Amino acid sequence: MKISRIEHLGIAVQSIADVLPYYTDVLGLEFYKEEVVEDQKVKTAFLKVGEVKIELLEPTSPDSTIQKFLDNGGRGVHHVAFKVEDGVANALVQCEGNGIRLIDKAPRCGADSLKIAFLHPKSTCGILTELCEE
Amino acid sequence: MKISRIEHLGIAVQSIADVLPYYTDVLGLEFYKEEVVEDQKVKTAFLKVGEVKIELLEPTSPDSTIQKFLDNGGRGVHHVAFKVEDGVANALVQCEGNGIRLIDKAPRCGADSLKIAFLHPKSTCGILTELCEE
Repeated sequence: MKISRIEHLGIAVQSIADVLPYYTDVLGLEFYKEEVVEDQKVKTAFLKVGEVKIELLEPTSPDSTIQKFLDNGGRGVHHVAFKVEDGVANALVQCEGNGIRLIDKAPRCGADSLKIAFLHPKSTCGILTELCEE
Repeated sequence: MKISRIEHLGIAVQSIADVLPYYTDVLGLEFYKEEVVEDQKVKTAFLKVGEVKIELLEPTSPDSTIQKFLDNGGRGVHHVAFKVEDGVANALVQCEGNGIRLIDKAPRCGADSLKIAFLHPKSTCGILTELCEE
């Protein structure tokens, strides 16, 4: 698997409207778009910091995994996403060969027109990990 | 405050030796050095992914803040560090003016020869946040 960079940090928030001023006015980061990802039941706000995106993730439904994360006391960084250069499907085969537990057995469509797949935090040292390709 | 990029992600682990193979062999990231930061009571292993460092943080003492984080069920990303281009001292003044609670009132020495200061997660939407300059 060839990882070139961190594609984004997914940050769970109860309300994008409440936290966005911190990111834009205090930290001075550039907010450039908002997107609803229906199948993940989240609204996402994208900010840019260097080569990395920050994705603020707000639940759009009580049964959103982000709402459950927040309800269980989860705060802050919900997942770390890496950009892979040699394909997510290929990376999943390699991960499985290395004994990594997969959440997604095959790539699916994510926010911002990416092909994505998640690895299980039990296999990734406690960090929910996403692999992405453009 | 002018933030140019994410400088590093600080990731709390009980044992660097246990998790390093995941980062180097599965993800294929480059491990380039290890450092003990005495006053923070941590051993740090540095990996590089694009322009961002991953700092694996292993407690060297039971009263290390990293050990307390792990003991309290904390897993994964312990803090996010931003590189500021116009000085950490200046950034702290701006943060305080914006009502942000500071952990460090003035810059101090961190790992990898950086000047650093931490902002309190109560003021930064739940993410322990570090500001760095070289």
